[in-house]
Parts: sequence; C-alpha cells; structure tokens
Amino acid sequence: MGSTAGPRAGRDGRRAPTLAVVGATGAVGAVMLDLLSTRRDAYGEIRLAASPRSAGRTLRVRGEDTEVAALAPEVFDGADIAMFAVPAAVAAEWAPAAVARGAVAVDGSPAFRTAPDVPLIVPEVNPGLVRDRPRGVLAGPGCTTLSMIVALGALHERYGLRELVVASYQAASGAGREGADTLYAQLEKVGGDRALGHRAGDVRGVVGDLGPFPAPLALNVVPWTGDPGEDGWGSEELSIRDECRKVLGLPELKVSATCVRVPVVTAHSVAVHAVFGERVDQREAQDVLARSPGVVLCDNPEMLEFPTPSDAVGTDPTWAGRVRRSLDDPRALDLFLCGDNLRKGAALNTAQIAELVAADLTP
Amino acid sequence: MGSTAGPRAGRDGRRAPTLAVVGATGAVGAVMLDLLSTRRDAYGEIRLAASPRSAGRTLRVRGEDTEVAALAPEVFDGADIAMFAVPAAVAAEWAPAAVARGAVAVDGSPAFRTAPDVPLIVPEVNPGLVRDRPRGVLAGPGCTTLSMIVALGALHERYGLRELVVASYQAASGAGREGADTLYAQLEKVGGDRALGHRAGDVRGVVGDLGPFPAPLALNVVPWTGDPGEDGWGSEELSIRDECRKVLGLPELKVSATCVRVPVVTAHSVAVHAVFGERVDQREAQDVLARSPGVVLCDNPEMLEFPTPSDAVGTDPTWAGRVRRSLDDPRALDLFLCGDNLRKGAALNTAQIAELVAADLTP
Repeated sequence: MGSTAGPRAGRDGRRAPTLAVVGATGAVGAVMLDLLSTRRDAYGEIRLAASPRSAGRTLRVRGEDTEVAALAPEVFDGADIAMFAVPAAVAAEWAPAAVARGAVAVDGSPAFRTAPDVPLIVPEVNPGLVRDRPRGVLAGPGCTTLSMIVALGALHERYGLRELVVASYQAASGAGREGADTLYAQLEKVGGDRALGHRAGDVRGVVGDLGPFPAPLALNVVPWTGDPGEDGWGSEELSIRDECRKVLGLPELKVSATCVRVPVVTAHSVAVHAVFGERVDQREAQDVLARSPGVVLCDNPEMLEFPTPSDAVGTDPTWAGRVRRSLDDPRALDLFLCGDNLRKGAALNTAQIAELVAADLTP
Repeated sequence: MGSTAGPRAGRDGRRAPTLAVVGATGAVGAVMLDLLSTRRDAYGEIRLAASPRSAGRTLRVRGEDTEVAALAPEVFDGADIAMFAVPAAVAAEWAPAAVARGAVAVDGSPAFRTAPDVPLIVPEVNPGLVRDRPRGVLAGPGCTTLSMIVALGALHERYGLRELVVASYQAASGAGREGADTLYAQLEKVGGDRALGHRAGDVRGVVGDLGPFPAPLALNVVPWTGDPGEDGWGSEELSIRDECRKVLGLPELKVSATCVRVPVVTAHSVAVHAVFGERVDQREAQDVLARSPGVVLCDNPEMLEFPTPSDAVGTDPTWAGRVRRSLDDPRALDLFLCGDNLRKGAALNTAQIAELVAADLTP
C-alpha cells in the first residue's frame, strides 16, 4: 500500500495521526495533495488510495513520492482519519468501511450532507461540531454554498440571518474536468465569427458538443444545474437551502436560490440579498467581513475594486465586495461573493475539517 | 433632406404621420430601420438623420434607398413623430428642438427617463400614458429593466407586486459595439491555453485591452456596470429601481438590484425574486406569462426547456422560465428572464411607443 515514510513524530513529539486520502488521483484530489504539501503538517503517515484503474501511480506528497494504493478495506487499517474526494456513490460505500476500521471519515461528496447524524462542517463557521460524530463521519457542503457561507456566517453572527435570496454565477469546472474542457472546445468554435451571438440560434448551432451542460455555455448562460427537484426547483437550488440551514443551525432560514452556469472556467460567484433580524450598517458589515478569517474584502467600486472569479481562482478565501445596505429595507444587505470551487469549494474545506479532527485526536 | 417618397396616404386613405429617425446610422438605429421595414407600416414620409459625420449615407427603409440628413432643426419641419436612438446628451439637446417644430419626441436614451413630466413607456404595460405628454416627450426605460418589465407587469396585474430582488447577467453589447468587439478580442486571446482560468491572475494578465469594461470579461463575470452612485450602489442598479417604480406606477416598490456583466454578446438575462401582495400559484403564474403579449414562456426544465440568451437573441419577446413559488414564502416567485438588449431593450420599445403615438395622431 502506498504511504509516505511513517508513522513519525508530530511537531510536539507525540505520534501524529495517520491520514488516508481516497480519490487522490482526481481533480479535487490533486488540489488536496497540494494543500497537504503546503499547509502546516498535521499528520504522521499519509496513505493515498484511488480506484484500481488509477492504482500504482506515484504522486508527490510533502516532497515525497507516494504510490497510490487500490481502494480496499486494508487501506484504512491503523488510519486515524480518511479524507474522501470521490463521487457520492463511492463515498457512501467506503466511508463506513473506513469508520469500521477505526478512522474518522471526512467526506466532501453529497453522500452524507443531509444525514441528521452527520455534522455538516465549515471550519470557519461551526468548528466545534467536529467533536460530535455519532457515525464517525463528517461532511462538508457543496461548492456553491461554500462560495458564500463563510462570509454569511460572519454576518449572521453579528446581525442574525433571517432570509437569503441567491443568484449564482457558477464555473464550468463545477461540472468537473469535462466541464472545463467542454467550455474551451466551445469557445474555440465560436471565437472566430464576430457576427455570432448577434443572430438568433447561431451559438446553439455552432458550439457542437454540449458536454455535461444542458445548453451551450460559450457566449451564453445556463439557468439550470443539477437534477430536477420538486415544483420546478433544481436539486442544487434545494441543496443550497438545506446546507445553509444546517451549517448555520437555522432550520427556519428562508432561502430562494437560482443556480446559473456561466462561461467561466474556475471560481463560483453569487449575488446575495441577505435579510437580518436587526438593522445593518454598510461600513460595519464591511468591517465584519474584513476581520473574518477566510474572507478577503475587496469593496471599493469607485476605484474599480470588486471581486471577480479571475481574482478568486487559485486562492483560498471567499472574496467579498459590492456590500450595500438595501435602500428599501434597513435590515437587508446586498453583496457579491466569489470563491474557488476547487479549493474552498471542495479540497480545502475537506482538508480543514481533517485538520480539526487531527487536532482533536492529538490533544 | 433624406426622405422616402411621401407624404403618402396611410392604409385607410388618411394622411399617415411623418416620422423622423434620429441616430439612424448607429447600432440601435440599424435595428430601428429593420423594424420599420418589417413591422406593420404606420407612417407616411420617413426621414433619416444622424451626426454630420454620418450624413449623406444612403440606407434602405421599407425597401427604398433613403439618404441620411445631417441633424438640424429643419429635419423636424412637418414631422409628426421623432424617434431618437442617440446618446443622452444628443437627445437632451435635440428632442426639445423636435417638439418646438411640432413633433412628438420618443427617446430611448436616459436623458428624460427620470423627468416627472415625461412618461416612461413600455407599450405592453402602460400604453395609455402615451396620450399624456405635457412636454411632448415620451421616454423608454433602460435595456436591463426592459429585459424583465413586460413579464413583471403581467404578474403585477394579477398578484400586486411589492418587492423585487434582481441579479442581472448583462451582455457585452449593452456597452455598444465596442463592448462586443472587446469580448471577441479577449476570447481570441484566452481561447488557446486550456490551463488559463485555473491559475490566479492568468486571465487578467492575458486578455489585453479591457475596452469599456472595468475588468476582464472573457472567462470572467464583472459585478459593476454604469457609474458610481451613493453608498456603494451603481447608477444602473439605482436606475432599475427608479424605472420599475415609474413604469409600474409603484413609487413604494422595494427593489434591490445587483448588475453583473457576463461574457455573452447579445441578450440580457435576470434572475428575479418577486414578492407579491397575495399568494401566488406556480401553474397560474406560468399561464399569466404564457398569455401575455410580448412574453414567451419556456419553462419545462425536466425537458431542458428554460430561457437562455442564445434563445432570446434576435427575437422580440421577453423569454420567461424557471418559474417557481418560493418554498418559504407563498407570496414570492423566483424566475429567470431573457431579452434582446438591442431589440426590446432599445430599438423595439422605442418603435412600439412611436406606433402608439402614430395611432393616437390618426384616430
């Protein structure tokens, strides 16, 4: 089984926890290994596992070549923590196997998000919940919720959140590598003809393969992601509501979300109208965001300072800007948020949860 | 002075009104001439005028070559109606000149939108106001308001609108031909490198000229349009609030808008959360929209039917879809709307207003 040299002593001499990374060879897994190699080292042995198809490959972690093992129950023998960067079906099958072998499972997939006995963790918002893991499993929310929840959690702590109206601007890579590749392939097809996009139907006729998207994405926006839910709602729009309620501990929170895919490769954005229990102040809200760990305030439009996906891509924090108090409701704020859907939106949040567990296991 | 053969008898034998088109050589002017040549003919003589720089050119209207006159007071001698497709400063100077010569001025620019004695007209919503023109000037709202107001007007008539939360997805051509050309030039620069958009700052470093936009638009979204207003609001966000209130006759309407430019060439989209005075029903709201002149309902996501800019471009109506009743407020609807910002968003609305005036002048 692949592993880095270990078990070894942690920075304080005590044995540091053993970590298993499941899905190491995927797009999110690659970001995870980068994070494990660059963040403060919390682990002793680190084991990598992936599907049999990808097993046997060698990847670098913490500067050491590490062989990727085929996913099997033995991967979890002696592991203290198992991070999962795999599809929901794989996580649903293997997280319990990791728990059965004594590991705490940290899953970034949707498999356990709605389970009442699985805490949904965003370390900047509800870190204390990592100690309460009745099933031995901890989960993180989806990438669109993660593009805004850290900033909203900070504002909720100050003003008491009551209602959210969210419109998303979601990147192609939220649909995986195939999503990003499809967008680039479509852009190459439409890039040449400058009359395109002026005449009805042209784009639809030219972009070719739609890939994972239900309509052309190049020179277009697509107001439909996920699967059909009830009464015209999309599954991701319903998940944003469920996840915001669970992470913030607000089962009565009013949430209306509209999910829209845009021709951006990486980094999700959201326009948020947030209604609170008390009056808000623009400057104070900006200060709350500027002081919040995991948030960068970029909010001076007169100097052309506002967050865009091209600023957030490849970075860890939530970028916050366009903070305005509603002109017609002194309890409401309108703001615009951006976050990298592959980092905080996936790998980073899972890695942060695992670090909290590691600290909890080595008091 | 350029004109088509006329004055001539209208279809009923009465003298049909004489029309002057100011700004005939611009992007919106070109759409106006196309509309004048394809819609039911309401006019006798049609005169074309433009800046001295463009004067002398010959354009086809109603199948006839028509010379473009240099804008001068004489252009309006004997004109019954003058349509303006020019910048606000030009309209502010020349609309009064047209009125002084006896014409009704119909202006698509922002010059007169907020004037209390100038009706703001959307023919599907408030056609009766064209008869009330104390200054002889009629105006239309901006392209973002026009991408949603026809659908919202129909829903208001049924349910009584109280509040709007709007997030826009605005096309590059909303910033004129330079906007569309800038987007295409940026797309050509970023199209080649598939690693682009995965690494921080890459897009910003590669797109080159920003043109009329405050940040890169290719592979990006830009949450800032218009000019700085008060307290962090953008001028266009404030205009949407003013225009919706004026067109719907709801001076107390609550409106929070966030304006975002997206890498689409033509057709604006908006995600709308609309709160009404009474309970709404999804199916009934869909029926109201399907029955409304100027609206096309495209709303069956399970069959991948929803509106996108590539569907709306080059067409006249507002495309409406994703109609959902809020899960947490039985008086609220969430929906997604698309409209061509160069047609209904500009030339078509002005042409429709002029047609109402023409009918009013020839009872």
